[in-house]
Amino acid sequence: MLLALTKTANFMAEPKANELMEKIVSLCKRRGFIFQSSEIYGGINGFWDYGPLGAELKRNVKDLWWTSMTRFREDVVGLEATIIMHPQIWKASGHVETFADMMSECPLTKKRVRTDQVDPQTGIAYFYTGAGSADGATSTETFSVLIAVGKPPESARKSAAQFYEMRGVKSPELQGERSEKIENTMLYHPESGVRLTEPRPFNLMFKTFVGPVESEENVAYLRPETAQAIFAQFKNIHETSRQKVPFGIAQVGKAFRNEVTPRNYTFRSREFEQMELEFFIKPDEAVEAIHGTVATVPSTGHPGEPQPNWGWQAWHQYWVEERVAFYEGIGLSRQTLGFHVQTPEELAHYARATVDILYKFPFSKKNEQGEMAGEELEGVAARSDFDLSQHERFSGKQMGVFDEELRAAWGKLDEEKKKDLWQRYHDARLKYLTKTGLNAEKAAKKAKEDADGLAKGQYIPHVIEPSAGVDRLILALLSNAYTEATETDDKGKTETRVILKFHPRVAPYKIGVMPLLKNKPDLVKKALEIRDTLRQHMNVFYDDGGSIGRRYARQDEAGTPFCVTVDFETFEGIKDGANAGEKDTVTIRHRDDGRQERIKVSELLGWLLPKVR
Amino acid sequence: MLLALTKTANFMAEPKANELMEKIVSLCKRRGFIFQSSEIYGGINGFWDYGPLGAELKRNVKDLWWTSMTRFREDVVGLEATIIMHPQIWKASGHVETFADMMSECPLTKKRVRTDQVDPQTGIAYFYTGAGSADGATSTETFSVLIAVGKPPESARKSAAQFYEMRGVKSPELQGERSEKIENTMLYHPESGVRLTEPRPFNLMFKTFVGPVESEENVAYLRPETAQAIFAQFKNIHETSRQKVPFGIAQVGKAFRNEVTPRNYTFRSREFEQMELEFFIKPDEAVEAIHGTVATVPSTGHPGEPQPNWGWQAWHQYWVEERVAFYEGIGLSRQTLGFHVQTPEELAHYARATVDILYKFPFSKKNEQGEMAGEELEGVAARSDFDLSQHERFSGKQMGVFDEELRAAWGKLDEEKKKDLWQRYHDARLKYLTKTGLNAEKAAKKAKEDADGLAKGQYIPHVIEPSAGVDRLILALLSNAYTEATETDDKGKTETRVILKFHPRVAPYKIGVMPLLKNKPDLVKKALEIRDTLRQHMNVFYDDGGSIGRRYARQDEAGTPFCVTVDFETFEGIKDGANAGEKDTVTIRHRDDGRQERIKVSELLGWLLPKVR
Repeated sequence: MLLALTKTANFMAEPKANELMEKIVSLCKRRGFIFQSSEIYGGINGFWDYGPLGAELKRNVKDLWWTSMTRFREDVVGLEATIIMHPQIWKASGHVETFADMMSECPLTKKRVRTDQVDPQTGIAYFYTGAGSADGATSTETFSVLIAVGKPPESARKSAAQFYEMRGVKSPELQGERSEKIENTMLYHPESGVRLTEPRPFNLMFKTFVGPVESEENVAYLRPETAQAIFAQFKNIHETSRQKVPFGIAQVGKAFRNEVTPRNYTFRSREFEQMELEFFIKPDEAVEAIHGTVATVPSTGHPGEPQPNWGWQAWHQYWVEERVAFYEGIGLSRQTLGFHVQTPEELAHYARATVDILYKFPFSKKNEQGEMAGEELEGVAARSDFDLSQHERFSGKQMGVFDEELRAAWGKLDEEKKKDLWQRYHDARLKYLTKTGLNAEKAAKKAKEDADGLAKGQYIPHVIEPSAGVDRLILALLSNAYTEATETDDKGKTETRVILKFHPRVAPYKIGVMPLLKNKPDLVKKALEIRDTLRQHMNVFYDDGGSIGRRYARQDEAGTPFCVTVDFETFEGIKDGANAGEKDTVTIRHRDDGRQERIKVSELLGWLLPKVR
Repeated sequence: MLLALTKTANFMAEPKANELMEKIVSLCKRRGFIFQSSEIYGGINGFWDYGPLGAELKRNVKDLWWTSMTRFREDVVGLEATIIMHPQIWKASGHVETFADMMSECPLTKKRVRTDQVDPQTGIAYFYTGAGSADGATSTETFSVLIAVGKPPESARKSAAQFYEMRGVKSPELQGERSEKIENTMLYHPESGVRLTEPRPFNLMFKTFVGPVESEENVAYLRPETAQAIFAQFKNIHETSRQKVPFGIAQVGKAFRNEVTPRNYTFRSREFEQMELEFFIKPDEAVEAIHGTVATVPSTGHPGEPQPNWGWQAWHQYWVEERVAFYEGIGLSRQTLGFHVQTPEELAHYARATVDILYKFPFSKKNEQGEMAGEELEGVAARSDFDLSQHERFSGKQMGVFDEELRAAWGKLDEEKKKDLWQRYHDARLKYLTKTGLNAEKAAKKAKEDADGLAKGQYIPHVIEPSAGVDRLILALLSNAYTEATETDDKGKTETRVILKFHPRVAPYKIGVMPLLKNKPDLVKKALEIRDTLRQHMNVFYDDGGSIGRRYARQDEAGTPFCVTVDFETFEGIKDGANAGEKDTVTIRHRDDGRQERIKVSELLGWLLPKVR
């Protein structure tokens, strides 16, 4: 008989949000899922390391994504590009110009804050119009500082004097002082009280220099997303991989954003990992030329197997549903997810549609109706032909493809259809070209060329981009798995313990293998044999220390879905029940409900494999 | 009957080194193994992307390393740490101070070169002792420039004048001109001819800033190696993973070095990937206290399964041999490898021993005896307790462990043994502490404390570090696999084609699955069924385009070790031979020798799995 759990488990109601997050953070550290980076040096804000269990969890997630994207599909291939790329890529993508937060500075202390994240303050604001000095120096710069109600004006004057002295006005005589009570203002620095400078964009890309000289021409950036590498290598891959549009390129890798305020544990960090697919499709005009019409698909649900007559809408919906199916397949049910369809105002000018797939995190906020929308796990964007067009424009290299099917089909169209398709393609290109700042004449000339190209089978592919964050998915999986069980033992003692109910596919260890007693060589030998067989196929945790109950609890906390125990019945035969007398069986214990059953050792692998893959 | 290769294959003698490298580079681009990063923008020196085939090859290598290190061992766990860490880590590791190349600058153009890599030049050197100006400005800085023999002295004077003008001497009158012929000098800039400045260290770490302000206190570095993250997280992992010394921590990840001259294709690049294990062991004194003596192992060959009485030498040799076995297991035979045992002069002061495992690349140089040593694939270093000691010193956090076995054993030692072990441990610690620059008194006090700690079961673990470069291993695998076959067809036409003879374990695709004809639905259906079954377990390339011979050749070039073809005999039964009449078989074709055999479809997976895993 096994020393099984004789306790009764009561699953608690969900703890409160922040309390729950604290518990998750604490468990992650205690069990080696996630540590603060550089912790022994006091940490570094916005950087997190994955310990032994976290590293395996993350590997499983990335492997499942990669395998589902590349191995199980004929129409997606992989790429592994560098983090540092040519800086021109980030000009083409728009990151150099627009990937920025607005920041304001305290002119006294030079400390910066994000303009939209200043805590509102109330107090007496003092204003000065300038200052003069005995030696004739003057400043007409205005200055303002907020001081607490009731505080003497001297403290304001001291700040002002400091400010004007920094501007070369010695022992300044302050001019034009006036004061005013201000409520809930976000215009003053929360520490110094000094009025902030006008907001200025602060680029979120980490900057470095390649080569020995720190000059402007050697500036490079750590990629803020993996996607651009895919666009930059599109032609090389298209030419070498025997893929034809529609096809995709998948990449997993680190990206970096110098967030001003990293927050929510690993959710918004400065170094993170992405899983991005760029799926290249024909423009709708090409599909229509080839197939007569573009397929219409129902606006909800999975549109089924890809069809040649799909336009961007069908492909977009297909990828949203494929991605949701992926999340469901690793344990995030549809109820735990949310969706946000970007409004026309939210969409980038080139985007046709974007659907964000959300997860309801413990820190997610509820709206006035008490509903929780969730936070973004992944965005699925229909980005038109913007990305490749930009790289064509900035690199001067052709990014279009030649489509024999289109060329052949075009010849058979009637003139009206040709004219219609030509015009629509022309207008879309013209819109893009005009947006780039090209003058009207040049834009018109190029749009005409592009539309003429379409008639010859040439176009720049459009793209659907499902872009997922690995770290936030890991956090979603941890939040989703986190369960507390309160158990009362025979003596009435109550204990709360944690069970991580990971889907077996993502669980760091798939199974714990244990000999009932570590001092019985037969049991140990058998358990090791089982371990050695199983670990050809999966991660196995071998544990021979402590009571079986303790060992089970330890695996519950690590999220291991199954444990097997080699006991005396393995050798002597099952004692009771339908299979009494049967030898070479082990106990399988289920993490989620503590249920135990016996299984033949020879059937173990076959029983496990479909569950963990 | 299959349209099999009826040509005869003649394997060519090995092409010349550079020619071979050029062929490999060209194949890698043509088949999508490796592309230049940001190629459409002219590339970025020292950065390389892995295309579809390269990404799979690299994944296989990293997965095999990770699996062999973690899943198949009880004594190693994984870590996935950030690339940007607290800058103090690089002070502790010594990288901030000493991880540098010596660089010299042209004082005129400000261009820098690596002092040890200037091409030797011969010419007439002109020297000046200073210059004066009509307005009274003078400079006594010396200046020298090298001009070609026979060139008029005016060009030298022009450079000199420019130099002194930059120093504020207008229309300078040059002083103290003399000239001299110099041969094979490395002291002048190869472009400007101007004498270089004194060599100065140039740090190889990429620098960036974390947070919105680019100030000294916000400086951070991209890690130049993954190892330090392991040391920094040693305590966290030791406390949470239930591991006891000896045990190891494994990590795979990107690292960055701002090499002045990246070279040899992907061998020395600026962004690269490492697979590093830090294996923590007891100091020899602890082993001796517990086991009476430290095991001696033969100085060559694998010392076998780890034993509790192993000291650093046995562990070091164990890891060298384990790593060689890993390389052999993925197709790099011992003959393709070289070894370099670092001499006492080469060793870092804290290192006990380092063995470099080399691979003989096409670009490797031969010595005077015509022998090729090879280039480093991996270094296996016995690093004493230096790393953890440094982090203890810089972080102020205890990095030692408590060893109950040692504490218990120590109590049973006779006094003489205690004294001997205490002294040896004390002396080793004192040596380290003195090296850190601690004053004699403090070092003596701390060394005594440390030795007293040992007697209570406490010590800082020593470490064995097998540190491998992923990219150079990929390049070794490509070089090793590259084979040319010259074939003459029936009409006497000769053609040379490439076969990449990868070990099946690392091959990007394990098998090509092909229907003989794409317009026969039965053949296609069967081939797709086979593909779907196999790809649950491995990467499969499905190909129905072109002649079978062409498809085989395409897979040979991609390094796919096997192809199966579904043909009419699959349905109609084998025509001839011992198994005539047998149905449901396919042809397996072997990449390396073109050999073909028939196998039952039902036995295919079982036949393949042991070969590709």
